[in-house]
Amino acid sequence: MYRPQNLRIPGPTFVPQAVLAASARPLINHRGPEFAALLAALTRALQDFLRTEHDVLLLTASGSGGMEAAIANTLSSGDKALVFSCGAFGERFAAIAKSYGVDARRVDVPYGRAVDPELVRDELAKEKGKEGAKAVLVTHNETSTGVLNPVKDIATVVRDSGKLFLVDSVSGAGCSELEIDEWGIDVCITASQKAWGAPPGAAMVTMSPRAWKAYEKSNLPKSYFDLAAYKAALEKAQTPATPAVTVFIALQESLRLMAEEGLEAIIRRHQNLARATRRGLQAVNLQLFADERHASPAVTAFRPPARVDARNLIRILRDDHDTIVAGGQGKMEGQLVRVAHLGFVTLQDIVSFFSALELTLRDLNQPVEPGVAISATLRAYAEGASPPAARPAARAAARPPADAVATRR
Amino acid sequence: MYRPQNLRIPGPTFVPQAVLAASARPLINHRGPEFAALLAALTRALQDFLRTEHDVLLLTASGSGGMEAAIANTLSSGDKALVFSCGAFGERFAAIAKSYGVDARRVDVPYGRAVDPELVRDELAKEKGKEGAKAVLVTHNETSTGVLNPVKDIATVVRDSGKLFLVDSVSGAGCSELEIDEWGIDVCITASQKAWGAPPGAAMVTMSPRAWKAYEKSNLPKSYFDLAAYKAALEKAQTPATPAVTVFIALQESLRLMAEEGLEAIIRRHQNLARATRRGLQAVNLQLFADERHASPAVTAFRPPARVDARNLIRILRDDHDTIVAGGQGKMEGQLVRVAHLGFVTLQDIVSFFSALELTLRDLNQPVEPGVAISATLRAYAEGASPPAARPAARAAARPPADAVATRR
Repeated sequence: MYRPQNLRIPGPTFVPQAVLAASARPLINHRGPEFAALLAALTRALQDFLRTEHDVLLLTASGSGGMEAAIANTLSSGDKALVFSCGAFGERFAAIAKSYGVDARRVDVPYGRAVDPELVRDELAKEKGKEGAKAVLVTHNETSTGVLNPVKDIATVVRDSGKLFLVDSVSGAGCSELEIDEWGIDVCITASQKAWGAPPGAAMVTMSPRAWKAYEKSNLPKSYFDLAAYKAALEKAQTPATPAVTVFIALQESLRLMAEEGLEAIIRRHQNLARATRRGLQAVNLQLFADERHASPAVTAFRPPARVDARNLIRILRDDHDTIVAGGQGKMEGQLVRVAHLGFVTLQDIVSFFSALELTLRDLNQPVEPGVAISATLRAYAEGASPPAARPAARAAARPPADAVATRR
Repeated sequence: MYRPQNLRIPGPTFVPQAVLAASARPLINHRGPEFAALLAALTRALQDFLRTEHDVLLLTASGSGGMEAAIANTLSSGDKALVFSCGAFGERFAAIAKSYGVDARRVDVPYGRAVDPELVRDELAKEKGKEGAKAVLVTHNETSTGVLNPVKDIATVVRDSGKLFLVDSVSGAGCSELEIDEWGIDVCITASQKAWGAPPGAAMVTMSPRAWKAYEKSNLPKSYFDLAAYKAALEKAQTPATPAVTVFIALQESLRLMAEEGLEAIIRRHQNLARATRRGLQAVNLQLFADERHASPAVTAFRPPARVDARNLIRILRDDHDTIVAGGQGKMEGQLVRVAHLGFVTLQDIVSFFSALELTLRDLNQPVEPGVAISATLRAYAEGASPPAARPAARAAARPPADAVATRR
């Protein structure tokens, strides 16, 4: 039986048919002119989306590999680093640093809360006069709890301290505001299978001039993740080792689709869908996990109903409704459900999710009137997509003048 | 204009349409039951092809990433290692070890020659009484020169020494004899885009029980390439970080096609096509680069005609004949042409290559009678594929008895 899945996990995200088809093109020589053109175009497109003129280096790895590259290329053994963590991926960032002998001190914020820029300021103030941290590490979008950290404000604090600023934006870039150059982010990591809607296999790492200076002093071993080798190879439009060619081709196609929509529209769509999702969940009395002021545009975490194991709810969604969501990670296992609205996601996907969730809740003997969550979702989306008062004017403004249309033809 | 390429580089190799189509299936949850079944089946199939019961761990990386994992998981900083090198990939193996602070001593064999097991014996004998190397590192198939090292015989010598044996078989596994368990190889690396005929993005690393003992003592930093994390995740049929799902799915499909042919037949096909290629090249007076006794089944390197820059020949093959071959690497740039017969390659691909080469040689004012190389190739292939005398008997033996056919229906 044909049973398409509604893949609502925070990566791998749904990959459009056009992107899948691109990934299935015949292989090409990774040392030839076609790949050179591909890599140059990809790099330029990523710089545009990441709002940076820094180097953007494409690794054949998952986002975790990119996080490792960020650390191994800028720090040395024994260096101190401050890691602000509010979930599993903050913990992972610290663990990677520690595995390389970096003296990483983790400052934890309770799960579901965001990292407060004032906390960062206080922790940095404690270091005055001491040989303090060389770098500050922060997760942009904490996928495990559904929190978007205020990186813009944190960046202001970190910039004042003069320390290196390493940001894991694996699941934040491409779906939320991120101004790498303007905010002064030295190293930023993202990955193909998140907002970019391509298959997993490519990690992207940006390096500022300051990061390259840190590279010169870094003594951590690096070979596969040696970013200077990537930069040197990029000057010949190549990669040091064989890249995941089909993933790169797919990524180029997904970036093309994203460019058609435009980054601002993409960010607005994510905000709208995230808010609509939260309203739908609240309409069926499910408790949101994250502080709403810092709710993630990529993924929403919620508690299962009382006396329901999240794993059971997730299993019913999957087995009976072909709707694939994520559970809690680490110590949150069984206690959280995470539904993603990341990448090429539409209102229809969210409505489909809620149709599955409403029926699942009834299976679990929860008092749910069918359609309640969906109605709330649609209402919230309609409000966010175009406020009724502003609508006619906005439409008129969006319509190109007649001669512009003529020119386009 | 429709201009299909004849991709004759030693990886990425040609990927069959069925494998490309598999790679373009909708994405799945890498933490769900479908991926679990895929990873378990892939691991089992790879163990079969690699003739091992050791752990086979699938990394999202190129082969170079797998080589780094082999080193980072078994050695410590300051450990001595002996690297026998006969080309660019032997040099890379040593360079990776050195980047991790391993005291890697490289024993070089001239390009085009194989590593003699007696050389390995002599070098190991020199270490008697001293604190010698902890590991011996060897390239199985040296892609840069077209040499297949006699790993079976080298293994005998290494086994006697009690040292760890790390083998880069990135381009050797799946196209040549390789008995990981029987020969006593502790760590072996291969990669999806070589003999396996899948897109690049997956590296496979095997770990023997002895290698796991070495892991316990290894102090090199590792996180993304920490093989113990892969082993622990594999017990739950997962990977530690997001895997290149579409590449894994493609690899399963290509392994299915390979299982239909059978490993022995695949190895024989590679030997036949490699020999046929050498005979074709010799028929147009091109000089083979590698010692024929150790000629690679994966790739054949040859010198361009006198006073012809290899890059020029390669460019004409590409631009005028859509035939993509590789050049010399490193110090051999401009001096070598390398044509691959690796993976899902047929006699027709080789004939097509020679039709392009013959015309290219004429363009370069070389005296070549059209068809000469192709005739020699076909003759050599016919001899190797089934010696005339043995043919009828072999055919009879290959035909299954009537009841077997009935059963299969």
